[in-house]
Amino acid sequence: MTQPLIAPSILSADFASLGAEVRAIAAAGADYIHVDVMDGHFVPNITIGPTVVKALRPHTDRPFDVHLMISPVDPYLEAFAQAGADIITVQAEATTHLDRTLERIRALGKKAGVALNPSTPESAVAYVLDRLDLVLVMTVNPGFGGQSFIPAMIPKIQALRALIGRRPIQIEVDGGVNHETARLCAQAGAEVLVAGSAVFQDGPGRYQANIAALRG
Amino acid sequence: MTQPLIAPSILSADFASLGAEVRAIAAAGADYIHVDVMDGHFVPNITIGPTVVKALRPHTDRPFDVHLMISPVDPYLEAFAQAGADIITVQAEATTHLDRTLERIRALGKKAGVALNPSTPESAVAYVLDRLDLVLVMTVNPGFGGQSFIPAMIPKIQALRALIGRRPIQIEVDGGVNHETARLCAQAGAEVLVAGSAVFQDGPGRYQANIAALRG
Amino acid sequence: MTQPLIAPSILSADFASLGAEVRAIAAAGADYIHVDVMDGHFVPNITIGPTVVKALRPHTDRPFDVHLMISPVDPYLEAFAQAGADIITVQAEATTHLDRTLERIRALGKKAGVALNPSTPESAVAYVLDRLDLVLVMTVNPGFGGQSFIPAMIPKIQALRALIGRRPIQIEVDGGVNHETARLCAQAGAEVLVAGSAVFQDGPGRYQANIAALRG
Amino acid sequence: MTQPLIAPSILSADFASLGAEVRAIAAAGADYIHVDVMDGHFVPNITIGPTVVKALRPHTDRPFDVHLMISPVDPYLEAFAQAGADIITVQAEATTHLDRTLERIRALGKKAGVALNPSTPESAVAYVLDRLDLVLVMTVNPGFGGQSFIPAMIPKIQALRALIGRRPIQIEVDGGVNHETARLCAQAGAEVLVAGSAVFQDGPGRYQANIAALRG
Amino acid sequence: MTQPLIAPSILSADFASLGAEVRAIAAAGADYIHVDVMDGHFVPNITIGPTVVKALRPHTDRPFDVHLMISPVDPYLEAFAQAGADIITVQAEATTHLDRTLERIRALGKKAGVALNPSTPESAVAYVLDRLDLVLVMTVNPGFGGQSFIPAMIPKIQALRALIGRRPIQIEVDGGVNHETARLCAQAGAEVLVAGSAVFQDGPGRYQANIAALRG
Amino acid sequence: MTQPLIAPSILSADFASLGAEVRAIAAAGADYIHVDVMDGHFVPNITIGPTVVKALRPHTDRPFDVHLMISPVDPYLEAFAQAGADIITVQAEATTHLDRTLERIRALGKKAGVALNPSTPESAVAYVLDRLDLVLVMTVNPGFGGQSFIPAMIPKIQALRALIGRRPIQIEVDGGVNHETARLCAQAGAEVLVAGSAVFQDGPGRYQANIAALRG
Repeated sequence: MTQPLIAPSILSADFASLGAEVRAIAAAGADYIHVDVMDGHFVPNITIGPTVVKALRPHTDRPFDVHLMISPVDPYLEAFAQAGADIITVQAEATTHLDRTLERIRALGKKAGVALNPSTPESAVAYVLDRLDLVLVMTVNPGFGGQSFIPAMIPKIQALRALIGRRPIQIEVDGGVNHETARLCAQAGAEVLVAGSAVFQDGPGRYQANIAALRG
Repeated sequence: MTQPLIAPSILSADFASLGAEVRAIAAAGADYIHVDVMDGHFVPNITIGPTVVKALRPHTDRPFDVHLMISPVDPYLEAFAQAGADIITVQAEATTHLDRTLERIRALGKKAGVALNPSTPESAVAYVLDRLDLVLVMTVNPGFGGQSFIPAMIPKIQALRALIGRRPIQIEVDGGVNHETARLCAQAGAEVLVAGSAVFQDGPGRYQANIAALRG
Repeated sequence: MTQPLIAPSILSADFASLGAEVRAIAAAGADYIHVDVMDGHFVPNITIGPTVVKALRPHTDRPFDVHLMISPVDPYLEAFAQAGADIITVQAEATTHLDRTLERIRALGKKAGVALNPSTPESAVAYVLDRLDLVLVMTVNPGFGGQSFIPAMIPKIQALRALIGRRPIQIEVDGGVNHETARLCAQAGAEVLVAGSAVFQDGPGRYQANIAALRG
Repeated sequence: MTQPLIAPSILSADFASLGAEVRAIAAAGADYIHVDVMDGHFVPNITIGPTVVKALRPHTDRPFDVHLMISPVDPYLEAFAQAGADIITVQAEATTHLDRTLERIRALGKKAGVALNPSTPESAVAYVLDRLDLVLVMTVNPGFGGQSFIPAMIPKIQALRALIGRRPIQIEVDGGVNHETARLCAQAGAEVLVAGSAVFQDGPGRYQANIAALRG
Repeated sequence: MTQPLIAPSILSADFASLGAEVRAIAAAGADYIHVDVMDGHFVPNITIGPTVVKALRPHTDRPFDVHLMISPVDPYLEAFAQAGADIITVQAEATTHLDRTLERIRALGKKAGVALNPSTPESAVAYVLDRLDLVLVMTVNPGFGGQSFIPAMIPKIQALRALIGRRPIQIEVDGGVNHETARLCAQAGAEVLVAGSAVFQDGPGRYQANIAALRG
Repeated sequence: MTQPLIAPSILSADFASLGAEVRAIAAAGADYIHVDVMDGHFVPNITIGPTVVKALRPHTDRPFDVHLMISPVDPYLEAFAQAGADIITVQAEATTHLDRTLERIRALGKKAGVALNPSTPESAVAYVLDRLDLVLVMTVNPGFGGQSFIPAMIPKIQALRALIGRRPIQIEVDGGVNHETARLCAQAGAEVLVAGSAVFQDGPGRYQANIAALRG
């Protein structure tokens, strides 16, 4: 088990000064900058869109790991690619043509990810593994920060690890990640941990320590 | 004809440092802070949601004039009210129960506005005038900044002015507002001018002069 | 000004014994039995559907005046016709092919009505007057009982009366009807008054007196 | 194999006197009162909504087993909880956030169920077993009464029984249940049988005998 | 009153040999080739799409007058422009951003039209006249051929003629056009007549005579 | 392994003379005439609907194998049955009531098929095998011709073959079928091959040779 990558979610950052926040977490050792995009339709919350991603792009060279909690998703892939996303992750439940969506993301020169809602079984990605760079296991229901980790997701991570085999696909988890659940996820096979309050709590002075603690 | 109020649209601000931008335009004399909310469904663009509005609230005491280009809109009224909106404006085309939506905005203690797409006639508000504090005449098609003012909107402003009569309802215009079109709108009866690049062009050092120029 | 017809809305009846309620209001002098159908989509409430209408049909020979607050509406016209509706009223906002919907209602051998939300102008029916037997002016927003009459609907009733001219089209009002508003509506040109609590308050023993009071 | 519980579906009751019907089946030994809610969108039929459930609540203290054949379902959970539902069952196909929906039902203090359409595999509930009190196997396609039992559902019941293991989750079946299919379902692992005409046929005088016959 | 232009609708042609049909009506004097595109959503019928239009393009140099009875319409404008449409007409009821849709059609180098359903008042185009080359008054409900002309559309044609004034906008009518209704429409101000069976009846040998008869 | 059946897709035919094309491929040995119906909603393309199918029916007595890439699909089943379809195949992703849809197709006297998008696992049909005559494995994403065969579909064909067992259900493949991929599909268990350009390339003179080559 190698040390997990840490992807702080800007959903927990100060939205009034996102540029500074992004610089701060990059300096503190963030591996990815995790961007939560919500449209008020796939999930009952609206956060930020491509214009904000584009404004943040000059503030760091860390990869932008953009999680699209939107439906439909295909009309917006190009805008997020142009705004500076490096990884574009779509929800399996948000499109009936998942294979085509993933093909398009790669055609835009980006890494392609699929996120699975807590209730969605791993069979949703069984036939698109050749198109995938990342699987995001939602360990809470998407839409809001501050929820509790769902224990039933641990066997899902294990099942995905078995399904993926030796393919170069990262398993990422998002939701309720703290010192304790981070360890469980990593043991089950997760390689990237999204974290919100666990990184941003107690302000910029603590970002580095918070990230280090999550690496376990 | 009194001097128009100026409502800079943060769609043209730097999204990486919105708090600072809001403070700057307030200091430069902005009457309202105009917030453009888009959900990727009513319009083909996603901008920002209630979390961002809430983060900006502590940065100024100027009224937040929140324009919801979203559909459905009712499920989000409360979130924007709690986030700190002062005026909540909905699109007439985004709801089939416009009277109820306006009633709810006022029940939340906020001022209620209706925005009209360029093709929407003023008859859309003829029977809700008693619920209204503001009518927003879109002088471009909503969704993106940088479009050209549509001249056919001038007679619509005049028609609304006649329809409103002596009721205390402000007419606001949004889209393609510059020194020249600002004057035409004000002459036709508009009292609040939303402006994007006309305010934000050439950086914070020019915000005050830009706003002053728009007042005519 | 002739005496208005009274159409008690079963939305205010006891849903546990609708057959008895229908018999009671018929005996008390109800001219129409007004049935409020809601699907949880056009309005945020679900009430009853064609199966209930069919079960009530044997309990009275009074006309069933069925107000469909549903969208889409065309797939359900036949079911309500077969269930025993006499008048089928659809919301103008619930279909983009209003003329066709009305044509179908008449082709099913029923009287055709159009309901207008409070914010909908009378121009919505200007070109379908030849297909119409009834216009229902919603004097509250549809979805729930117990709301207050919207005064701005009085001029709409007057405008409709002028638009209709000598055509045999009834104007019906629904929402917040009580002794006082009933009189205003009738003066403005309404011929049928839907009433909920104003009829059902104080129990079956008062239905006859309540109906009589509304006739003015 | 213990004796199955019987849940008469009020879809087969007399909708003109539901209160009396509910009292009659409760007196005849019904374990649950099964309430079929349809919105004309998830299924092509509209039945009854929360107002009717509320009106029936005083007529019995038997648990109300409310099956929501509606989509979206989340906006109506609270209304049905307040109306007196004891078990709230949602269709797996009606929400993309099944885990969250179940969590909310329990947060409202109610038992949470998931219904599976005939074509839906049991993997739909594999990751929400910790949130579940009941799985409803639809043995006909939802929407109407009077259809024939689908034999392929027997292996699905068996697969669910194996998946559930020792968790305290009831398996309920609905559709085409009669003396013969009841036995097959119970043998396969079903513990609650919904029945319409098999209970209500031949009138109130037979309800007790009909229920007894279904218990096998 | 000048002689009207005739636009045979290929909805009444033989779909097994559309190329030959298009050549035949062009030879017979058709002014426009009217193409009815239906998507099974805006109207309850599916006809043909851009691939068919493209296949027909080499068969004539008459203008293709393409009527899009589809919703949403914006995603398909470019495909129809590339397929060879000369005039692209959209339904006013199919988009909430009519001004933008028309602007895009012209930006694609095509003439822009708006079609009005029978129930839609002329106010729907009052503020987009500067974007318009054609208004199509539907004189039957769109979706199928063989319906009867709706007389109430004559005053709508007259109202549009008055609204248009001296702008270079053609008024076209579609539905139930025969020798008699053609004359009424032309007198009211229509300049282009769409005709189906009135042109195609009795086979190719009669196309020329049929067209001549409609010109009156 | 028996020789596969060949189903030329008219998506690659000349849409200006479909009758002649259908006669030509029938004469060249086509086993089925494969008709691709798209509505611009389930897939981002519109092709042809029931009117075209009906016009082609007199041109051949080969079975019409109609693939409905439309959603909703139930409202159009009857129209395609009446137009002359022999096999009606629906997308598993296009309906939440797949069992009912298949039951209706058979009730119309037609053979019933289910198509699976590339990402859809075979579990989607596990509980409807008793209703099925054909499973269509999409080996490209539906919507357009000319795409490349997806290798991951070979194990899906094998899995379906195992799931089907000895039931009389044909496995059909569609997308990127050429001489080489045809062999792979047939070896994995496919019995019907849909082919577009592989049949229609080089014109009618080559149809017979092209079909023969695909049979392997």
